[in-house]
Amino acid sequence: MTTPERLTAAIIGGTGYTGGELLRLLLDHPRADVAAITSRSALGKPITLWHPNLRGRTALKFTDPGELLAADTPLDIAFLCMPHGESSAQIDRWADRATRLIDLSADFRLRDPARYERHYGAAHPAPAWLDRFTYGLPETNREAIRGAAHVSGVGCNATAMNLALLPLARAQLIDRVVVEVKVGSSEGGATHSPATHHPVRTGVVRSFAPTGHRHQAEVEQELFDRNGAPFELHVSATAIDMVRGVLATAHIFPKRTVDERELWAIFRETYADEPFVRIVKDRAGQYRLPEPKILAGTNYADVGFALDSAGNRIVAISAIDNLMKGAAGSAVQCMNLMCGFDETEGLTFPGLHPI
Amino acid sequence: MTTPERLTAAIIGGTGYTGGELLRLLLDHPRADVAAITSRSALGKPITLWHPNLRGRTALKFTDPGELLAADTPLDIAFLCMPHGESSAQIDRWADRATRLIDLSADFRLRDPARYERHYGAAHPAPAWLDRFTYGLPETNREAIRGAAHVSGVGCNATAMNLALLPLARAQLIDRVVVEVKVGSSEGGATHSPATHHPVRTGVVRSFAPTGHRHQAEVEQELFDRNGAPFELHVSATAIDMVRGVLATAHIFPKRTVDERELWAIFRETYADEPFVRIVKDRAGQYRLPEPKILAGTNYADVGFALDSAGNRIVAISAIDNLMKGAAGSAVQCMNLMCGFDETEGLTFPGLHPI
Amino acid sequence: MTTPERLTAAIIGGTGYTGGELLRLLLDHPRADVAAITSRSALGKPITLWHPNLRGRTALKFTDPGELLAADTPLDIAFLCMPHGESSAQIDRWADRATRLIDLSADFRLRDPARYERHYGAAHPAPAWLDRFTYGLPETNREAIRGAAHVSGVGCNATAMNLALLPLARAQLIDRVVVEVKVGSSEGGATHSPATHHPVRTGVVRSFAPTGHRHQAEVEQELFDRNGAPFELHVSATAIDMVRGVLATAHIFPKRTVDERELWAIFRETYADEPFVRIVKDRAGQYRLPEPKILAGTNYADVGFALDSAGNRIVAISAIDNLMKGAAGSAVQCMNLMCGFDETEGLTFPGLHPI
Amino acid sequence: MTTPERLTAAIIGGTGYTGGELLRLLLDHPRADVAAITSRSALGKPITLWHPNLRGRTALKFTDPGELLAADTPLDIAFLCMPHGESSAQIDRWADRATRLIDLSADFRLRDPARYERHYGAAHPAPAWLDRFTYGLPETNREAIRGAAHVSGVGCNATAMNLALLPLARAQLIDRVVVEVKVGSSEGGATHSPATHHPVRTGVVRSFAPTGHRHQAEVEQELFDRNGAPFELHVSATAIDMVRGVLATAHIFPKRTVDERELWAIFRETYADEPFVRIVKDRAGQYRLPEPKILAGTNYADVGFALDSAGNRIVAISAIDNLMKGAAGSAVQCMNLMCGFDETEGLTFPGLHPI
Repeated sequence: MTTPERLTAAIIGGTGYTGGELLRLLLDHPRADVAAITSRSALGKPITLWHPNLRGRTALKFTDPGELLAADTPLDIAFLCMPHGESSAQIDRWADRATRLIDLSADFRLRDPARYERHYGAAHPAPAWLDRFTYGLPETNREAIRGAAHVSGVGCNATAMNLALLPLARAQLIDRVVVEVKVGSSEGGATHSPATHHPVRTGVVRSFAPTGHRHQAEVEQELFDRNGAPFELHVSATAIDMVRGVLATAHIFPKRTVDERELWAIFRETYADEPFVRIVKDRAGQYRLPEPKILAGTNYADVGFALDSAGNRIVAISAIDNLMKGAAGSAVQCMNLMCGFDETEGLTFPGLHPI
Repeated sequence: MTTPERLTAAIIGGTGYTGGELLRLLLDHPRADVAAITSRSALGKPITLWHPNLRGRTALKFTDPGELLAADTPLDIAFLCMPHGESSAQIDRWADRATRLIDLSADFRLRDPARYERHYGAAHPAPAWLDRFTYGLPETNREAIRGAAHVSGVGCNATAMNLALLPLARAQLIDRVVVEVKVGSSEGGATHSPATHHPVRTGVVRSFAPTGHRHQAEVEQELFDRNGAPFELHVSATAIDMVRGVLATAHIFPKRTVDERELWAIFRETYADEPFVRIVKDRAGQYRLPEPKILAGTNYADVGFALDSAGNRIVAISAIDNLMKGAAGSAVQCMNLMCGFDETEGLTFPGLHPI
Repeated sequence: MTTPERLTAAIIGGTGYTGGELLRLLLDHPRADVAAITSRSALGKPITLWHPNLRGRTALKFTDPGELLAADTPLDIAFLCMPHGESSAQIDRWADRATRLIDLSADFRLRDPARYERHYGAAHPAPAWLDRFTYGLPETNREAIRGAAHVSGVGCNATAMNLALLPLARAQLIDRVVVEVKVGSSEGGATHSPATHHPVRTGVVRSFAPTGHRHQAEVEQELFDRNGAPFELHVSATAIDMVRGVLATAHIFPKRTVDERELWAIFRETYADEPFVRIVKDRAGQYRLPEPKILAGTNYADVGFALDSAGNRIVAISAIDNLMKGAAGSAVQCMNLMCGFDETEGLTFPGLHPI
Repeated sequence: MTTPERLTAAIIGGTGYTGGELLRLLLDHPRADVAAITSRSALGKPITLWHPNLRGRTALKFTDPGELLAADTPLDIAFLCMPHGESSAQIDRWADRATRLIDLSADFRLRDPARYERHYGAAHPAPAWLDRFTYGLPETNREAIRGAAHVSGVGCNATAMNLALLPLARAQLIDRVVVEVKVGSSEGGATHSPATHHPVRTGVVRSFAPTGHRHQAEVEQELFDRNGAPFELHVSATAIDMVRGVLATAHIFPKRTVDERELWAIFRETYADEPFVRIVKDRAGQYRLPEPKILAGTNYADVGFALDSAGNRIVAISAIDNLMKGAAGSAVQCMNLMCGFDETEGLTFPGLHPI
C-alpha cells in the first residue's frame, strides 16, 4: 500500500461530536482533504449547523452515504462514526470502498469474540472482521497500526485507564486495581435524553456505573494479553459536571512494595518517547497532577502517580480529552501512522489555560 | 367564602418543576394537606422519581386527574400546573371541582384579550374566564388577591421585570426602558430538547429572545394599566449557565433627572413593608447588588438600583428564583392571602450561602 | 444538667461558612436564641456582609469574643468555629463560660492522642481535654452525645466515609476498602488562595490528596474502635467543580461474598430508624444513587450501594452537604440530642430540585 | 523599518493570563521565536508552573526584565504585559530596547489625555507617548497599524462593544445605545481576591459595573472620533459564571427606522473581508447568534443582530474570547500587520465544540 502525498478522506456519520472533532482536525491537517462528510438525517444541510465552531472554515454540507458508496472517486481513508452496531452492519461495503478504514464505534475494538460477548451481552455480529482490525491506541500498539488498513477507535474511558496502568502492567507490578473514572457529558454523545437535560445533568456526581463498565474489556485486551499479564481489575465510573474530559484514578495494590524512584523509572521507560503522553507530577503550582480541563482540544494524555507512605498503594492518574485522545485525536494519530506521516501532524494544538 | 383551619389541596399536573416546588412547599406548610398530585404519564409512580429531594418526606404517588375530578371529596384549593393551553381547555371542570384555583400556566395572566392575542399570536381560547381571574403578584395586586377565588400565576421573567420597575412606574418616572433578563435553564421546564442537552446548554450566553418576550405583556398589564402609565418598553432575554434564577437589569431613561436620595425614597415607599422584597444596595461585601444564586429555594425578590453620574440613566436590578417568586412561591403567597393566612406561612426558607 | 425551654446560644468565630450555616439554622430553630456571633476581624459589621442570604432575617452584628467571655449573661451553648488549633488554645475559657460546647474545629475529634499525632503530625496541644469531648456524629455515637456537655464536630469527608461504611463495619464484613471522596470548594473554607481563584478552581478534577487524608483518623476511631474492628483503609480525595457537597465512593473487598439481599438487610438494620439517613438505590428515574446536589442545605446523608456480579466488590456510596451533615447540621443535631429536644428540630429543610 | 524573516520576540511580565496566551501563540507562530519571557516574582521558575497547558512545548523559564533590558541581543518585538500604570513608567526603556512594542496594558490605548483623565480619574503619567502609539484593533484601524512601531492592546469589553457597533457607527445610524456586556472571571486577571474565591464567584450574575465602565473610553475614541460620529452611549457590565468570554448585547435606538435587509448590507460592508469577524445570524441550529463559548482560544469575533418588529430597536451582539480577540490574539494580529506577515499567521485555531 503506497501512501499518496495527500489523502482523500471521508467521514461517515458526521453529525456527532466525534465526527465534528475529526472534521476540525482534518480541515487543518496538512496532508488530508475532506472529500465528504455524510449524514442521512442532515442531508444537504451545512455542517456548521451541527459544528458551529467551523463557521468560516468550510462550506461543506452533509451528503448521502449511499451516493458516496456508489461513486467511483478515490477514497484513501474513511472514518466510520456510526452508532455502535451500525458499523458492523456496513463494514463490507466501506472496506470495499476505501483503501483504509478507521472505525470509531465499539464494534471492532476487541479481537476475542468471547470477550466481546461477555462484555456486550450478545454474539459479535461480524466476527470474521475481528481479526482484520487493529486496535487503535498507538501507545500500546504502534507497530501493528503502522501497517494496518483497518484500525479501530478506542473507548475513551478505556484509554484513560490503559494509559494510567500501562507502565505498571508492563512492569508486571499489578496485583489488584480499583479504577475510578470521572467523566463529562460529551461522552454520551450528541443525542439528548432525560438524563442529559441541563437542569438534571448540571451539578451531578452521578455513579452511573459503580461496578462495571464495558470499556474494561479494552483494558483486559491491551494490558492482560498484549502488554502484561492478567490482574484483578475493578472499574467504577462517575459522571461529573464537565463537558469534555476523563480523569482516571487507579488505585493499584502492587505485588511488592516499590518506592518513588522505581516508579519514576517505570513511567519514564514507557512514556519518555511518546509524543502525546506527558508525565505530570509537580511539587509546586496549582496543577501538580493530571487535570483534564487543560487538555480540551488536545491529543495529550497527562499521566501522574502518587505512592502512599507505606509503599503498598500506588495511585496512577491519567487525564485525557475524551473526544480527542479518547476518540478523534487517537484516530488521526493512527491515520498518520498508517500513512507514514509524522505522528503529530495535525495534532499540535497545545490546549488552553485558564479555561 | 369561609376559610377552613386547614386546606385540602391538590396539584394538577405534578411532574414538572413548578409542581415539584409546590409540593415541597405544601408538604411543609402548617395549614395545608396535599390530598393528590396528578399526572397521566406518571400514573401510579412515586413522586420521588421526579422530585428526588422529597425522598423520606412523602409517600405520595401520582394519581389520575380524571378520578380526582370525578371524586366528591372536598377540595379547598387546586393548583393547575398544566402546559399552556391545557388549562383553558379544562378550566370549567376544575373551577367546579375546587373552591379555589391557582393556575400556573400562562393562560389566565392577562385581562385584555387583545393584549393576549397580540403577544401570543392567537385569540384566547376561553375569553369568558379572563375577567374571573386575578393576576397573582401580591406586590402589584395584593388587595384583589385577598378576596379572589381564581388567581393566575406569574411569568418568571415578568415578575423580575415588574419588581425592578414597580417603584419607578408608580412614581411615573419612566420614559423609556431597556430590560435585559438573564435566565437559567429550569425556566424552560422539565422537558428535554436538543437545546437543553448538557454539552450544548452548558456555558452558553445565548440571546434567545433579543427583541421581544411574551412576558412583557404582563409588564404592560401590571405597570401601564394598574400601577402607573404607559412607557416605552424594550425587552431582551439571554440564557446563561445557571439552573435557577433570573436577574433583570433594567436601564431606565427617566422623564427627569433624579438623585440617589430620591431613588431610595421611591424604592422604600414601595417595598418597605413587603415581606418578600429586600432592597439590596451595599457599599461593601461581595454581594452588593441583587444576585439570584443566594435566592435559590426562597420566595425573596432582591431589588437594587444604581444611577449614572449624569443622573440620566437609572439601572434597576432585581433577582428572583424563577421557580419560587417567579412561580410556586408567589402561588403559595397568593394562597395564603386568599385564605387569610399569614402571608409568609410556609415560605420562610432564607436561602443558602455559599452556593 | 437541666434543659431550659429555650437555649441562649453563641457562635464564636462567625465569618466562615460553618458559622454562617449555624447562624441560619439557629435563627429558625424553635428553641434557640442567638445571643451573639463573634469575630475580631469583622467587629461591629453586620453579619449580612458575610452571610448575604440572611438579609432581612437578622440585624446581628459581629461582637468581640473577649467581651462575651467577660460578660456574665447566661450562655447555654457555645459553638466554636475557630480555625484548627485556636480552639484548643481557648478551650478552658469557653468551657467555663458556656454550659455546653460544640467545637467545630478538628481539635477535639479524636480520643487517642497517638492517633492525633500520627495524622496531624504534632502532639495534641490540650490532651487533657480529649477525654472530655464526645465525637459528634449521632449515627455512630448517639447515646454518648445525649448526656454530653462537650461535643466535637465532625470532618465532612470523614462523615461521608463513616456513613457509607458504618453498616458494613458493624457487620464486620470489610477486609479492605478504597474510598474516593469527591469534594466541593466550600470544604476549604472562606479564605481565598491561588488554588481557589475562580479561573483556576473552575472545571478542575484535582487529585489533591491521592494517598491519604487526615479525616481517615475519624474513620479509624468510629469504625475500628467503636462500631466494628480494624480493616485495611485507603483514602483518596479529588476536588471537582462544585461548591457544596461530598460524594464518597467506597470500594469494599469483603471478607466473604455477599448478595444484594443481605446487603439490603445490613443497610436497613443500621439506617431504618435514622432520621437523617436515607437509603437511595432506585431502579428508575434520573437519581438512582446518592447525589450531593439535591442535599444542599439539608442535614440528610443519602447512602446507597451496588454489588459487582461476582459478589466480591461492594460499592457503598454516600452523599452529604459538607457544610450541613458534614458540619453545622450535625452540630445542631447534636445540640438537639444534648438538650433532649426532638432530634430533627430546626433541620427540616428537604432540599431543592432541580438545582 | 525592514521586516526580518523571523522575529525575535520577548514577553515582559509573563505570569498573567495575557502573557500565557501570547506565549502559546508565539511558540506556534511560524515566524516568531520567543527569546525571553520575564517575571521578577517568578524568576528562574519554569513557565509551565503558571501555564500548565504548555508542558512539553517549551522549557522556557522566567528571566529578569532588568537583564533583558541590559543585554544587547536584537529584539524585534516586545509585548508589554505589565499591570496598568507600570507600562508608562517603563516605556522609555522598552522603546529603546525593542524595535517594535505592543503594550497590552490600558496605559496607551487612548490618544486624548483629557479622555484618559475623565475615565481613569488621573492625569496620564506619560502623555508624550500618547501620540506615538496606535490603537491595536485592526478592524477599526488597520492601515495605521501596518506602519506602526508602537501599538497598544485593546480593552476586552471595549473590543466586544466596538465590533458590535462599528457597522452601525460607520453608517451613522446610532442615536442612543445601551450596551450590556457579560463577562467571565479571567477578565480580572490571575490575581486572587475575596471576589474571585470559587464559592463566592461561582454562579454569580453580578452587576459589578451597572452604570459605567472605563472601556467605554475606547468606544468613544474608535467610534465617535474615527469611524463615525458621537452618539449617546450607556454601558453596563455583568459578571457571570464563565472563565473566558465576553458577550456584548447592544440595544441601539437608531436615528431612523431600518429593515433587516439594510442591516445585512451594513454589517456585510464592514465585515465581509475581515479575516476574524464572522456574521452569525442563523435560522436553525442551536447556535443562531454569537456565543462566546465556542470562541475559546480563537481570534474570532462573532457578530450578529436582531431587529424588533417595529424597526426602532436594533440589537447588535458580539462575542469574543477576552484573552484572545480581546487581548493576546489581537496583539498577534497587530504584530502580523506591523511586520507585513499574513494577518492570520499563528491565529488559525478554529475553536472547539462541544465545550
